[in-house]
Amino acid sequence: MNPLILDGRKVAQSVKDELMAQICELKGKGVTPKLATILVGNDEASKTYVQMKANTCHKLGMESERVFLPEETTTDELLDVIQRLNSDHQVHGILLQHPVPSHIDERKAFDEIALEKDVDGVTSHGFGATTFQLGAYPCCTPAAILQVIDYYNLELEGKHAVIIGRSPILGKPVSMMLLNRNATVTICHSRTENLDQIVKQADVVVAAVGRPKFVKGEWLKEGSIVLDAGYNPGNIGDADYESCYPKSSAITPVPGGIGPVTISMLLKHTVEAAQRQLNTTKTHSNVS
Amino acid sequence: MNPLILDGRKVAQSVKDELMAQICELKGKGVTPKLATILVGNDEASKTYVQMKANTCHKLGMESERVFLPEETTTDELLDVIQRLNSDHQVHGILLQHPVPSHIDERKAFDEIALEKDVDGVTSHGFGATTFQLGAYPCCTPAAILQVIDYYNLELEGKHAVIIGRSPILGKPVSMMLLNRNATVTICHSRTENLDQIVKQADVVVAAVGRPKFVKGEWLKEGSIVLDAGYNPGNIGDADYESCYPKSSAITPVPGGIGPVTISMLLKHTVEAAQRQLNTTKTHSNVS
Repeated sequence: MNPLILDGRKVAQSVKDELMAQICELKGKGVTPKLATILVGNDEASKTYVQMKANTCHKLGMESERVFLPEETTTDELLDVIQRLNSDHQVHGILLQHPVPSHIDERKAFDEIALEKDVDGVTSHGFGATTFQLGAYPCCTPAAILQVIDYYNLELEGKHAVIIGRSPILGKPVSMMLLNRNATVTICHSRTENLDQIVKQADVVVAAVGRPKFVKGEWLKEGSIVLDAGYNPGNIGDADYESCYPKSSAITPVPGGIGPVTISMLLKHTVEAAQRQLNTTKTHSNVS
Repeated sequence: MNPLILDGRKVAQSVKDELMAQICELKGKGVTPKLATILVGNDEASKTYVQMKANTCHKLGMESERVFLPEETTTDELLDVIQRLNSDHQVHGILLQHPVPSHIDERKAFDEIALEKDVDGVTSHGFGATTFQLGAYPCCTPAAILQVIDYYNLELEGKHAVIIGRSPILGKPVSMMLLNRNATVTICHSRTENLDQIVKQADVVVAAVGRPKFVKGEWLKEGSIVLDAGYNPGNIGDADYESCYPKSSAITPVPGGIGPVTISMLLKHTVEAAQRQLNTTKTHSNVS
């Protein structure tokens, strides 16, 4: 049987279809979900990403606020902007585009984002609350991976998932999310010995290492599921698709795999944040 | 060569020796580190634990405040107590003894503890900040495991650590801490298939499953390191010591392994919290 190609564009569309209905309903109640994006500096790729996010917002009928800050912005000035957006009741979600210029304390800036507006799942508190399943918004790429898994009804319970990569916004959160779905999880990284032998045992491989064509087909167990979160220059994934495809039972292509789902998860979280804010307001007015 | 028996009492003593010097120095500056413990209800084992913690505080010259709340305490009443301790500048660390009566929202109570006073490492924010290495206090049992590893100079870099258990205060944090020390980490649990075959690959096994004598010697690779965080009724560990000992290169006994180190980590974190508070106060007075 041919491997199943996991079509991220189809998954993203299904998410957006659901969102449009929810946004319509929210607007009927007088609330338009709004995402604020912050871009510091002049990185061209980052500009494109922020533009794409704003465009998708508008296509779905959401609002966006785009904050552009000059390259020389200090950490304190950035924190001020985040605080302003935290206290702006019109803003439901805040995204600080990564990376910021190197003189800025990015972690401090991320952690300044209010938990309830951290729709990009970048705060350390949000990571903890995601791990403990307390209803925080997970990072968008891990969330996209889970969305693809669920769309295709792929089984995780008791499966051995091997994650290659341990970054705060990808490897670590996806590991915790798969663990919470009852997978047995192995986290590998640059210091891992005998990586190929570990990958050989995986029912599910998540490639999140940031190196083009890193995962080879010969490492895979026959019939494994390959989820490629890589997005290297030239639209190249972290898995070597050509050699991985024939060994897998299901695989995400790059482009067209996890990538397109990621933005839709950002908007999904923003809509959820707007819904929660509305519910909180309702509860409060019932009480008063 | 005989396996090395990892002597937790010796490790704990070395921690306490260091602490006594630090406490003495702090007192010289007018600060006595103080741990507040909260016990809700009448659980006898919990009473003993809280008593032990207070006693060790006093032995080292630290202060303690013990708050006893009746079984029928509500979540809101407990939150009030935590808030009071959060804002009490004499209190450097807060410990809410687990478990609380079942009608209380334990997670909400844990997460009410101010991050800078969370010396027991139970908040979801603290878990995230520990995972991202932001200087939060990790949970005490995982911290004790790392302390034993460091005391005996056991190598972690590139080693395969298999963690059996995924609780918020043990399996999950110790996994992240070992990952941050460059181990390759596999997290197993009740739904894991072929557990014995996974354990067989481990250079380091952390038993954190809460089932007596669960890990068998026949599962182990020859020469592996066994760290037993279990503490079941009758002083019985999660590893079957008798069969594990001859297969291991190093092993923690129960009792006398991880257990004794755990309380000393709690006090170490409390002393650190007092030092940080002092430094913060200093910085502020320099500024003004």
